[in-house]
Amino acid sequence: MTTPLNERRIANAIRVLAMDAVQQANSGHPGAPMGMADIADVVWREFLTHNPGNPQWINRDRFVLSNGHGSMLQYALLHLTGYDLSIEDLKQFRQLHSKTPGHPELGYAPGIETTTGPLGQGIANAVGFALAEKTLAAQFNKDDLNVVNHFTYCFLGDGCLMEGVSHEACSLAGTLGLGKLIAYYDDNGISIDGEVEGWFSDDTEQRFNAYGWQVLRVDGHDAQAIRQATLKAQTETTKPTLIICKTIIGLGSPNKQGKEDCHGAPLGGEEIKLTREALGWAEEAFVIPEDIYAAWNAKEKGTQAEATWNELFTQYQAKYPLEAAELLRRTSGDLPDDFAEKAAQFISDTNAKAETIATRKASQNTLQAFGPLLPELLGGSADLAGSNLTLWKGCQGIQDNPAGNYVHYGVREFGMTAIANGVALHGGFIPYVATFLMFMEYARNAVRMSALMKQRVIHVYTHDSIGLGEDGPTHQPIEQIASLRGTPNLNTWRPADTVETAVAWKSALERKEGPSALILSRQNLPFQNRNAEQIANIEKGAYILAEEKGELKAIIIATGSEVDLAMQAYTELDGVRVVSMPSAEVFMQQDAAYRETVLPVNIRARVAVEAAHVDYWWKFVGLDGKVIGMTSYGESAPAKDLFKHFGISKDAVINAVKSLA
Amino acid sequence: MTTPLNERRIANAIRVLAMDAVQQANSGHPGAPMGMADIADVVWREFLTHNPGNPQWINRDRFVLSNGHGSMLQYALLHLTGYDLSIEDLKQFRQLHSKTPGHPELGYAPGIETTTGPLGQGIANAVGFALAEKTLAAQFNKDDLNVVNHFTYCFLGDGCLMEGVSHEACSLAGTLGLGKLIAYYDDNGISIDGEVEGWFSDDTEQRFNAYGWQVLRVDGHDAQAIRQATLKAQTETTKPTLIICKTIIGLGSPNKQGKEDCHGAPLGGEEIKLTREALGWAEEAFVIPEDIYAAWNAKEKGTQAEATWNELFTQYQAKYPLEAAELLRRTSGDLPDDFAEKAAQFISDTNAKAETIATRKASQNTLQAFGPLLPELLGGSADLAGSNLTLWKGCQGIQDNPAGNYVHYGVREFGMTAIANGVALHGGFIPYVATFLMFMEYARNAVRMSALMKQRVIHVYTHDSIGLGEDGPTHQPIEQIASLRGTPNLNTWRPADTVETAVAWKSALERKEGPSALILSRQNLPFQNRNAEQIANIEKGAYILAEEKGELKAIIIATGSEVDLAMQAYTELDGVRVVSMPSAEVFMQQDAAYRETVLPVNIRARVAVEAAHVDYWWKFVGLDGKVIGMTSYGESAPAKDLFKHFGISKDAVINAVKSLA
Repeated sequence: MTTPLNERRIANAIRVLAMDAVQQANSGHPGAPMGMADIADVVWREFLTHNPGNPQWINRDRFVLSNGHGSMLQYALLHLTGYDLSIEDLKQFRQLHSKTPGHPELGYAPGIETTTGPLGQGIANAVGFALAEKTLAAQFNKDDLNVVNHFTYCFLGDGCLMEGVSHEACSLAGTLGLGKLIAYYDDNGISIDGEVEGWFSDDTEQRFNAYGWQVLRVDGHDAQAIRQATLKAQTETTKPTLIICKTIIGLGSPNKQGKEDCHGAPLGGEEIKLTREALGWAEEAFVIPEDIYAAWNAKEKGTQAEATWNELFTQYQAKYPLEAAELLRRTSGDLPDDFAEKAAQFISDTNAKAETIATRKASQNTLQAFGPLLPELLGGSADLAGSNLTLWKGCQGIQDNPAGNYVHYGVREFGMTAIANGVALHGGFIPYVATFLMFMEYARNAVRMSALMKQRVIHVYTHDSIGLGEDGPTHQPIEQIASLRGTPNLNTWRPADTVETAVAWKSALERKEGPSALILSRQNLPFQNRNAEQIANIEKGAYILAEEKGELKAIIIATGSEVDLAMQAYTELDGVRVVSMPSAEVFMQQDAAYRETVLPVNIRARVAVEAAHVDYWWKFVGLDGKVIGMTSYGESAPAKDLFKHFGISKDAVINAVKSLA
Repeated sequence: MTTPLNERRIANAIRVLAMDAVQQANSGHPGAPMGMADIADVVWREFLTHNPGNPQWINRDRFVLSNGHGSMLQYALLHLTGYDLSIEDLKQFRQLHSKTPGHPELGYAPGIETTTGPLGQGIANAVGFALAEKTLAAQFNKDDLNVVNHFTYCFLGDGCLMEGVSHEACSLAGTLGLGKLIAYYDDNGISIDGEVEGWFSDDTEQRFNAYGWQVLRVDGHDAQAIRQATLKAQTETTKPTLIICKTIIGLGSPNKQGKEDCHGAPLGGEEIKLTREALGWAEEAFVIPEDIYAAWNAKEKGTQAEATWNELFTQYQAKYPLEAAELLRRTSGDLPDDFAEKAAQFISDTNAKAETIATRKASQNTLQAFGPLLPELLGGSADLAGSNLTLWKGCQGIQDNPAGNYVHYGVREFGMTAIANGVALHGGFIPYVATFLMFMEYARNAVRMSALMKQRVIHVYTHDSIGLGEDGPTHQPIEQIASLRGTPNLNTWRPADTVETAVAWKSALERKEGPSALILSRQNLPFQNRNAEQIANIEKGAYILAEEKGELKAIIIATGSEVDLAMQAYTELDGVRVVSMPSAEVFMQQDAAYRETVLPVNIRARVAVEAAHVDYWWKFVGLDGKVIGMTSYGESAPAKDLFKHFGISKDAVINAVKSLA
């Protein structure tokens, strides 16, 4: 540390805002903002290219606070540099309906690029930002007109580095050579349980060298060292850079700095007073001197930066009008104008073909049709491309062609999904990622984060039940579909055949406000005949696939591979309707009138059949209904033996209906 | 490679068994067994101390196949060395009711130490085995009587190393200095998508050096090199060892070795014929020459090894009879004889105290009472000890005292849980592990594995709802409890107060056949008054907490923090019963008669209230009932504001009941 604390007035503005806001909220984390204030001072005032007046400027540098509990650091920075985040907003830290929730949440304060807090996912999102930037640049930049050209900066802590997802994402970032990713590790030696040496003794420099990163070490309170390291990071274009910053957590607090006491609790009134003295900070809480505001204000510089880019983009437009329009379309998130029509044609053609194939294969056929229409697709799989069937003929790996449209993520489900969230957040792409449905669990919280952040990420999950057969119970999903259906703002689809698969893809692609999960079979599923109205109703989530013969007495509800069992049972039953319900959530979003036409409330003889955990279905069949499905783990055997063993059969459906109706 | 392939007859027995069994099953993975056969030859014939005649011998070396898709490697080894696994069993590979499922499953073939297949978890289980061995040794070994003294061997592949859980577990293994853990990395350069260099370019030697491991490199087909490396690994007692074995996947298959073609599919009849020629293997499928069987047979050596240990243990018993008896008790999994009685007394005392505290605090109080009775407890938290309240006064970190009973796992939820599974599998301990309920998701698949493997692991999850307040939606569970309840063989408890918390702990500890999850509040929960019968009924999962006044017209079902809301509503309602349901799964395990006394089938005016996703509860309230709970994500605000904002209140309960009854 070269400069006395009381001469660091610019950085100290962060320290006081953080400690005061946490104190006012009576909860929060002052330690990280106070410890990283000097790093933030250098990065945000000297390097970060952004425009507080337009947080959506597409070529801005991205900033991610992976150690999201230090949210007051980011709120202080946004406030001080001139975003629409007032001192009143800071006073409302962690209060209902404020712009300043406990962790940085996308959509609350302007300038928040991603929701962080679940540790390790922020750095994975940052890898996604950098991957998107590199790929988009390769697709659009021409001559010297680098219209896509920005850095991604990420702050992270010990917790992020201990989490496995940081391994997955950073390993891949090294392999992909994401040279414009610059991460600052807040190496303060403290986590919640105390000094980390008892449980975290990695040589992090060596670890990241192993990943192929450039690793630099600095005193995190030495502005000149941080500056030089950042310059060196910007200069290294083929490797991501990790700057290990040795810091003192809670720096400025005479009695709590360097200790876990300041990590996750207010400093307390007395200690705040002492800290003000140590910092030489005379002002009251939430008062920042004008000269400090002036030193931080980035509005003019930001406006200028965007104007310079606008000039560049104007040249680009003049020379490459089609590409310019396409870049604007893609970053707006709009699909091509003709997509809906062409997709409808494909669905119609698919119906005409009437193929009996696995829905994972139907998914690939759909990708083969939609892929050429949608250059924004950025696909991938966690080392299961040939099983998930996520490659189509136009796919090129970004490992081979930087302007490609497919990522071989390796066996990294969590990293893949969190990276895809970053790609979606960046803009310009619709990412789809794939693994076996069971291994969704490895990525579970990133799936949730895509839904919480309302991002259009398409999660492709194949091998969706005991129907996968011999791989056995470790690979056979039981409770996983229910878990996805319970995730707010996630639309889960389990299509029954080629046509439902195509509609599910179309719905997922057209859904700008959130992610979708496509649950697909390993095994072949018979094609179902439908009329035009039925095909149109698929996108409502559930519809009558087979009208009852005679008076309606009972309803069979089925999804995916069990729809055909329901149809087989149907042929032997009178007064029974078959409802195909590829997406229960989408169905529940329809109006009550439509739902009543499909599932009349007075018909209580209801049987649901799905080769998954029964518990989800009581919602639709009630206390008087029956559910045919799974309540235990699966077994290793050929699929046909398993359906028989677990009693998921036409006869079981027939018997269940007869017992009720 | 020093020895010609056709002179490796002993190792080739593995190769032919693997390729023939996969061919017969028409699915499976021949590549890894054929590639690792030479390593297995050295490790299993020269180093592994085990007794095929007694797979439960407590001091056996543990062997884990983390790349579990190579299951035929392990089945071949178990068969060849003399376990009760016949050639007929191998012919039944991947068939229903066979002992040889597609992945190694605990409880099917003797000698399988853990279920593997979900990549990366096997090495984490192995870390758990080694941690258990080291801790149990420190607790029991005396003088030179090392009654606990064995190695843990683990085979793993590229996939395991890409998975984040390998980072978490191996980093901690290095910090803990688990010197008796020896891992063999099958470095074949191939994963399902092809040659790994496009997505996996880690310098694994450097990475594991960063973790503090000893790292050795060998040719995985050079027996002498493998032998020397293993000896060196055994000699290094303060660091785990990773032996990086350069191998050729599918070695022996003339056209497929070294390629992804042999990873996960049968070689095919013609290629098998060519492989037989290349191996110089004349015998038909499933025929092993007697001299090869003789070379592998480990029964006599194993019997001798166990006899030698028995002599040692007899000396130990003579000198330390109490400790010897305790070691036998602990490894049997039985609780102390007086536990049930003392636990009942604590529950009674807790009832008398009538405290209003958070259930996480009630959990700590319970640990404080039960901990001194149960030296087999091995606790831990993912860097949230002070929040989860998992430390009690008798806790000593194993980092400080090798004979301790607490692990500071660091911010590693998945690694922690998979390690705990290994600890439970090893025997001698009851592990409990803790994090915030939301971050259960990071560990989700390891929680499932504990249930699939029927292991007594106690998962402690605090901060269980929007009641955690200001940390906001990233930290507030919504759909997580339903996900746990849907996990077969997991008992989930969400207690309402101190007494229910103590009963939940007792039930979890007494449950030998599976794991339990304890869902605990951050905030204080009011004590509920109960009579003796009600207290006795808690362990049935649900019971009548408040009898209806007058004729029964409606039922309110509640759990955890919402039980008190139900009780508040109850005071204003006639004909309404309150059912507290701390464990829905345990309740469903009761006989129908008991369930009918609690929830009479003819009472359809039912309201469930739980600050979690509503969908779970339709199972209990049906199409005519109502559920008060969450359907969206939470928000960042003080808890009381959130309950109001989301309409989870006494008035909401009253209104719901009135709308139905």
